[in-house]
Amino acid sequence: MSIEATSTSVEQWDIFEVSLHGPTDGNPFQDVQISAQFTLQNRVVEPDGFYDGDGVYRVRFMPDTPGDWRFVTKSNVTELNGHSGEFSCTPASAGNHGPVKVRDIFHFAYADDTPYYSFGTTCYAWTHQGDELEEQTLATLKEAPFNKLRMGVFPKDYIYNENEPVLYPFVRDEAGTHDYDRFNPECFRHFEQRVGQLLEMGIEADIIIWHPYDRWGYCEMDAEQDYAYLRYLIARLAAYRNVWWSLANEYDFLLDTKPMSRWDRFFHILEDKDPYQHLRSIHNGHVDMNYDHTKPWVTHVCIQNWDVKKVKEWRNDFRKPIINDECEYEGNIPRPWGNISAEELTHRFWIMVVNGGYAGHGETYMHPEDELWWAKGGILRGESWKRIAFLRQIIEEGPAGGLTPFTESWVWTRVSGGRNGDYRLLYFGEHQPRQWAVGLPSAEEAADGSEYAIDLIDTWNMTITPLKPGPLPDAPATRGGVTRREAAFGIELPGKPYLAVRVRKVLT
Amino acid sequence: MSIEATSTSVEQWDIFEVSLHGPTDGNPFQDVQISAQFTLQNRVVEPDGFYDGDGVYRVRFMPDTPGDWRFVTKSNVTELNGHSGEFSCTPASAGNHGPVKVRDIFHFAYADDTPYYSFGTTCYAWTHQGDELEEQTLATLKEAPFNKLRMGVFPKDYIYNENEPVLYPFVRDEAGTHDYDRFNPECFRHFEQRVGQLLEMGIEADIIIWHPYDRWGYCEMDAEQDYAYLRYLIARLAAYRNVWWSLANEYDFLLDTKPMSRWDRFFHILEDKDPYQHLRSIHNGHVDMNYDHTKPWVTHVCIQNWDVKKVKEWRNDFRKPIINDECEYEGNIPRPWGNISAEELTHRFWIMVVNGGYAGHGETYMHPEDELWWAKGGILRGESWKRIAFLRQIIEEGPAGGLTPFTESWVWTRVSGGRNGDYRLLYFGEHQPRQWAVGLPSAEEAADGSEYAIDLIDTWNMTITPLKPGPLPDAPATRGGVTRREAAFGIELPGKPYLAVRVRKVLT
Repeated sequence: MSIEATSTSVEQWDIFEVSLHGPTDGNPFQDVQISAQFTLQNRVVEPDGFYDGDGVYRVRFMPDTPGDWRFVTKSNVTELNGHSGEFSCTPASAGNHGPVKVRDIFHFAYADDTPYYSFGTTCYAWTHQGDELEEQTLATLKEAPFNKLRMGVFPKDYIYNENEPVLYPFVRDEAGTHDYDRFNPECFRHFEQRVGQLLEMGIEADIIIWHPYDRWGYCEMDAEQDYAYLRYLIARLAAYRNVWWSLANEYDFLLDTKPMSRWDRFFHILEDKDPYQHLRSIHNGHVDMNYDHTKPWVTHVCIQNWDVKKVKEWRNDFRKPIINDECEYEGNIPRPWGNISAEELTHRFWIMVVNGGYAGHGETYMHPEDELWWAKGGILRGESWKRIAFLRQIIEEGPAGGLTPFTESWVWTRVSGGRNGDYRLLYFGEHQPRQWAVGLPSAEEAADGSEYAIDLIDTWNMTITPLKPGPLPDAPATRGGVTRREAAFGIELPGKPYLAVRVRKVLT
Repeated sequence: MSIEATSTSVEQWDIFEVSLHGPTDGNPFQDVQISAQFTLQNRVVEPDGFYDGDGVYRVRFMPDTPGDWRFVTKSNVTELNGHSGEFSCTPASAGNHGPVKVRDIFHFAYADDTPYYSFGTTCYAWTHQGDELEEQTLATLKEAPFNKLRMGVFPKDYIYNENEPVLYPFVRDEAGTHDYDRFNPECFRHFEQRVGQLLEMGIEADIIIWHPYDRWGYCEMDAEQDYAYLRYLIARLAAYRNVWWSLANEYDFLLDTKPMSRWDRFFHILEDKDPYQHLRSIHNGHVDMNYDHTKPWVTHVCIQNWDVKKVKEWRNDFRKPIINDECEYEGNIPRPWGNISAEELTHRFWIMVVNGGYAGHGETYMHPEDELWWAKGGILRGESWKRIAFLRQIIEEGPAGGLTPFTESWVWTRVSGGRNGDYRLLYFGEHQPRQWAVGLPSAEEAADGSEYAIDLIDTWNMTITPLKPGPLPDAPATRGGVTRREAAFGIELPGKPYLAVRVRKVLT
């Protein structure tokens, strides 16, 4: 019997792993329970371990606190039980901010309190495409603005994505029969490798656990098989700090085989078994079939909805961070969720973000070899991703914590404005005023002699041009009139669409 | 005592007028009641008359049926009572289709059953600008595509429209004090002249009876004064076949002085007093403050709402024709309802119309002399009106009766499609598919060997290009997949936004 640890020292929020050799007979995935208690002073954390094939059992742990941790294994198999050891957890190095959590109701931050602004994209089946394309995807992501990737565990069977996977998640015999009670560790090791590479690049892996695009029978697994699969995933992956759990893509297309009670149970398993309480959500297919995101175990709202000006309603309805992961994709395929223009997707991103939400990107341009980014990864062929990079840069240069939408006036049901303290970002979209004042600093705020740096932002051409404060627009005196809201100054604009204005207080 | 009739013969749906001389003492507007019973065989129609100043009383009548009509006046003043006469009503001449009515729940037609597709615009105060500008407005309308004009009776006090009116609707002394119990007939005669000129041009006058943009005290008139004003308007104007009654613009900004019960009463007065039952509606200010258009006396839904993809919901909610008269205006003023791009207004028109609704135009470009079309008329400076003309032409070339939106698939919550029998019009808007099939003729429909003429329509560049039927797009086989809906053929498109496709069955 041997026990091995990855090292005697591990960085905070990195993975410490214990591996042991144990039985290979019977079905180790079902027969053997293994976990380990990790202890630091009075704290005990007990992650489950998992069988990795060839008689190897592993327990992974992500320590969240520097110090000298001890551990002892627990198992129903004598030879795996009661092994102990210790390791030192050192403080996180630069660039390691820990896992992402909800902060301030509507936003996110890493565990070290660094703000996290979600700018995600989607490559559902990229880990099933073979190394060449997968490495190209990683190279593309290195140049792209995305810090979250929606990706499925299971292979995908859907138009433009009909190739067999390189590896199957369950053992499969030569006749093509799957044994849903036996995992294929090689497949999961490969998946973990990709998750780990994303981690190194600072990209959150938004792991989609179930989806309806299936010809291998994964949708028809029974409840116990589903629960075992979920527990196996947690045991293998929860120690990766960049993991987010997305229970399903378009879960509502699966309700015939997985009733609502099962989805609730999945959330409970994540609550019970994930020692780190990674972010948890679930993604709808039909707009009106959303899972009830007010349920307390849902950490943030994942939504598919093109009607992005509803973001303020969603914030009010759910009081959680809103990520509109499918506000339709840039592309040209014959599906209306996958053929909006780059201009339109850029526009929708701006509306979501300025109103204190987050949006997701996807690209679905038809391709002779069916290399559509949204399914397989590869390279980006569109135009919106560059503008999303520009938006991300603007948001990251702003004050920490994201934006809170203006709501004081009905004006904000039509144009978008958000603020964070003395920082303001207005987005006019399809509106093209020559003059503006609503949402600008009030006379009262400016009464202390404050000065303001004002910038005109062209969201498509990606230019930022300083603006001078101008006179207030005339306001109607009579009832029914829209006022200029007692602003300290107005601005003059070029009168064309897709502009934004940033206003920052200058300390004087 | 004299009695005069305009003529001894009048065309169907034109105006027959009886004028009489009567008392000038006291307050004839309040003291004198006058009406006339018009009789054709067993039918009796009794419109109220009105005092037109200088001792002249008039009764106007719009006969809807050819034949020999007789009339007799009724009055509480002996000298106006019991005068009788007769006239001949001849059939309508070419171009005179009668008043517009609701047809087929969601659409309109003239009384002679000619379809009426509403393509309206807005010049709230154009009749108060003096002859030079008013004649320019009429000249502009002659070249424009609009067949309905929203126009207020009262002058308007609002930003960009602060000039005093040429004529005041009520008697006003030199100190500027208005007598709300005495109308100024000269003002109403002028207004009628403009309504009559619109009638000659085939433009419906959507008459806005109250509005909140006021500095003359019209908003503070008491209930009896309001009712008297409404009855006076009906007596003067109902005989113009192109009249539509719009009780108010942004009635909800008037609720402090005119409670909801008064608005209901206004509708009842229109029901009681308008012998021709012209179309009746009312227009909201705040999106969430709409008058309850399910009330039976509302003939059609007049709405201010930018969120045009909701049109199918409104159709279902109200089961009446939907006119979105303010889906925001093309322009650049610092009010978000008045500064969308020409492209966006064109886009919203297409969405409204293809989904079986109607939309309204307005133009609000800042101007050094404050000549904004939306308030004063004058000339059109924008770009959307030309595209609206193009859309109107397409709709008028289609089959009679307007479109019924496709609803069978969730696809239609994202893109727009409408049909009328074998005629189909799809509008892709911000979507840019390279291939398409949903909504095209089904294999079943085409099984009789039908052929189809297919046109690609560029809604902005106003081009129509024939398309050939192409192969069906590939469809995903698995669950959650969007199907091609068993179409008989597919189409191939250029993959850019703001395109529409028209499909017409060719008789073979």
